[in-house]
Amino acid sequence: MKNFDTICSISTAQGIGALAVLRVSGKEAFEITGKLFKDSNDFKVQPSHFVKRFDIYENDALIDQATVVKFDAPKTYTGDDVVEITCHGSNYIQQKIIELLLINGARLAKAGEFTMRAFLNGKLDLPQAEAVADLIESQSEVAHRLAINQLKGNFSARIKSLRNQFVELAALMELELDFSEENVAFADRSQLQKLLHALKDEVTQLTESFKLGNVLKTGIPVAIIGKPNVGKSTLLNCLLKDDRAIVSHIPGTTRDTIEDNFTINGTNFRFIDTAGIRLTDDEIETFGIERTFKAIDKADIILYMIDISKTTLEEVEKELLFLENEIDFIRKKLIIVANKIDQLNELPKHFTEWNDYDIAFISAKRNVNIEEIRDMLTQHIDQHNLFDTTLLTNARHYDIMLKIEAEIKHVEEGFAQQLPTDLVVIYINSILHLLGEITGEVTTDEVLEGVFGRFCIGK
Amino acid sequence: MKNFDTICSISTAQGIGALAVLRVSGKEAFEITGKLFKDSNDFKVQPSHFVKRFDIYENDALIDQATVVKFDAPKTYTGDDVVEITCHGSNYIQQKIIELLLINGARLAKAGEFTMRAFLNGKLDLPQAEAVADLIESQSEVAHRLAINQLKGNFSARIKSLRNQFVELAALMELELDFSEENVAFADRSQLQKLLHALKDEVTQLTESFKLGNVLKTGIPVAIIGKPNVGKSTLLNCLLKDDRAIVSHIPGTTRDTIEDNFTINGTNFRFIDTAGIRLTDDEIETFGIERTFKAIDKADIILYMIDISKTTLEEVEKELLFLENEIDFIRKKLIIVANKIDQLNELPKHFTEWNDYDIAFISAKRNVNIEEIRDMLTQHIDQHNLFDTTLLTNARHYDIMLKIEAEIKHVEEGFAQQLPTDLVVIYINSILHLLGEITGEVTTDEVLEGVFGRFCIGK
Repeated sequence: MKNFDTICSISTAQGIGALAVLRVSGKEAFEITGKLFKDSNDFKVQPSHFVKRFDIYENDALIDQATVVKFDAPKTYTGDDVVEITCHGSNYIQQKIIELLLINGARLAKAGEFTMRAFLNGKLDLPQAEAVADLIESQSEVAHRLAINQLKGNFSARIKSLRNQFVELAALMELELDFSEENVAFADRSQLQKLLHALKDEVTQLTESFKLGNVLKTGIPVAIIGKPNVGKSTLLNCLLKDDRAIVSHIPGTTRDTIEDNFTINGTNFRFIDTAGIRLTDDEIETFGIERTFKAIDKADIILYMIDISKTTLEEVEKELLFLENEIDFIRKKLIIVANKIDQLNELPKHFTEWNDYDIAFISAKRNVNIEEIRDMLTQHIDQHNLFDTTLLTNARHYDIMLKIEAEIKHVEEGFAQQLPTDLVVIYINSILHLLGEITGEVTTDEVLEGVFGRFCIGK
Repeated sequence: MKNFDTICSISTAQGIGALAVLRVSGKEAFEITGKLFKDSNDFKVQPSHFVKRFDIYENDALIDQATVVKFDAPKTYTGDDVVEITCHGSNYIQQKIIELLLINGARLAKAGEFTMRAFLNGKLDLPQAEAVADLIESQSEVAHRLAINQLKGNFSARIKSLRNQFVELAALMELELDFSEENVAFADRSQLQKLLHALKDEVTQLTESFKLGNVLKTGIPVAIIGKPNVGKSTLLNCLLKDDRAIVSHIPGTTRDTIEDNFTINGTNFRFIDTAGIRLTDDEIETFGIERTFKAIDKADIILYMIDISKTTLEEVEKELLFLENEIDFIRKKLIIVANKIDQLNELPKHFTEWNDYDIAFISAKRNVNIEEIRDMLTQHIDQHNLFDTTLLTNARHYDIMLKIEAEIKHVEEGFAQQLPTDLVVIYINSILHLLGEITGEVTTDEVLEGVFGRFCIGK
């Protein structure tokens, strides 16, 4: 444990609540907190996990009656001595207690500083610390589960296993290096190459999982597109069960891209409502269309909406051809939404028998068959068997994994060019270093600032 | 202690924070909370004030690692068994834990229900419970001190002392009643009248303290008035040290009444910026002037601002005469603010020698002598010797005190009309009942709903 100075912070959400929690951590946490009470020695001498209601004074003025818990190092969140003060949640009281702590020698904690200390004291590794921030920000079941898995150390374990295999690879190469003077060099390279190939596959699997991991964390982007007035805003409203988009009967009135998050069966989706696609002289409208293409490009799932009461299959196929010329549909899921079935007596056969695409027949206005679209959206996700494998969810990890991929390529090239082993080992060592950057075994101040700077104050 | 059902609630401010606190209170608090942990029996059997980090599960899915404190009745906030759960402050986790508590048999607490239980379990009387809500809402030192005094029971003690004196009065009258058959009636009425008179004075003192107590709680209303372009918005900005009012050189542009709170030496002021007073054909301007009069009427302190570089004493006296015709200045403090002294070489003698009003010579633009106005504002307050006497700060108490005043008048009339003692005693009993309503010895569901309904959720 390091001998850290004493920091303090309000740790609950900003604003007025019934209660608020303040945290104090550091070598003088007990000393400084004790000075807020009439009998300051009473607090210091208490055992760990001691809880009591204390009167907090500024000189002789009673500021609050607060529940105070004492946690002795090292069995604390940060690994330092820690005090948690639960006070009445008025702004005045919260600020006053912080003021008193500062006067008595604490300083204000920076964003993420409590968790950074937990990391520096070896209570958490870096991916676990990063998971704490993800956990606090998680808004959906899936985002929450990804963060919890990472907090439990599942991701770190996988990286460590990967590291061990690279260490093994390096050891095998060192062995070869020893034998090389006896001219048995390259004898084992097929075995080395086999191991390298397996490792490369694992790294690729991880980097490829980032796209899914990242969208699961931030919401799977879904674009609703189609001609003006086919009912896109109405569908969006059905899905959001809310009136977030302005529904209008005037064609082309939805000009701004409205984004909103919504959860279906625990999965977070980010719906992108767009202006209708059509050629127009209206400048704003054209701008809207350009943004529509951009929105489609960002989307993983596209709900292509048609007014089935007014459209022929021929027209739809023509539109799809136009779209497929403009947009790369590889890795995108396209669902045709045939709307306004309430205006038909029966569904047209050439549509029901059309098997080229997934198609849902609905009435957004009458809220008919919306459940089918919901199912199609989540079905798309379930196929990935989310929690069987470790997903890469963090951009920092992803960047490092890309660098590792590049180094693996160097190793492969080294083997192909029959470079001397000691030159190839340099790349393996670089990979070990990069893996250490992920887990935090190797860190710089810059990395720590990047990781903990995005935390909220008080964590 | 009553055997209350189990309630739960998020008790910290809404939104995302590093931490959040949930509270559970009631006869099954330990039983229900225990079900969130893998080993549910482990929790129930622990002693009071036991603190431990618990893993919270939904079936087999880990939801969070939370610090949980157990408080055994009756030494708890509510008087029931209480559990405090400090979890990570994500919306998802907060809601999930509440969901798990509800599934396991708790119900959502209503606003103020924890504090209502504290009242019903005799942990607090009604003014103390009301002080908890005031404490949470307090934004200034003075408002906070008023709430703390009331929470400590100072106000309740005064009401109880008042009640005892009325009981004594009633006892003396009962005594008279006993003797009345022996024709010694009215013998002691002078003593009774003396006691009644003292009690009436005390009640009046309390009701009269409400105006001050109430404004100290919500902010002392200060109006800044004067002709257009004399620098009212600039002064307001100086006082607020902020750019909350739009400063403009065009006469009459400040049309909306802007209210803002600001604290000087711990006292909360509510500044009211107003449109300039002048006769005009402009309809909006006229509307602004009407609102100015209304604002002045609501204000306790009026800063009457003049442009001393362009105004004669004669004009000012004429304006003041006009104002005093329109507005009742009794109980209002008027301060003349002579602005724009930076545009003069020396202060005009007829102003400096003018002793009819408090006057401050300033330059709002150059921030000269603003401190003098600050001093005048707080000076006005210090004269009241705030904390020597108990102040009535609560509208509910004030309403009841007014009813008590009316009943005292009935008693006085009874004495004057030489009504039989047993008829007069009815009014005294009514007063005792009313005092009981303040302290909560006598309550109805309606009163409890009124008091606790204004609390925030989770308190």
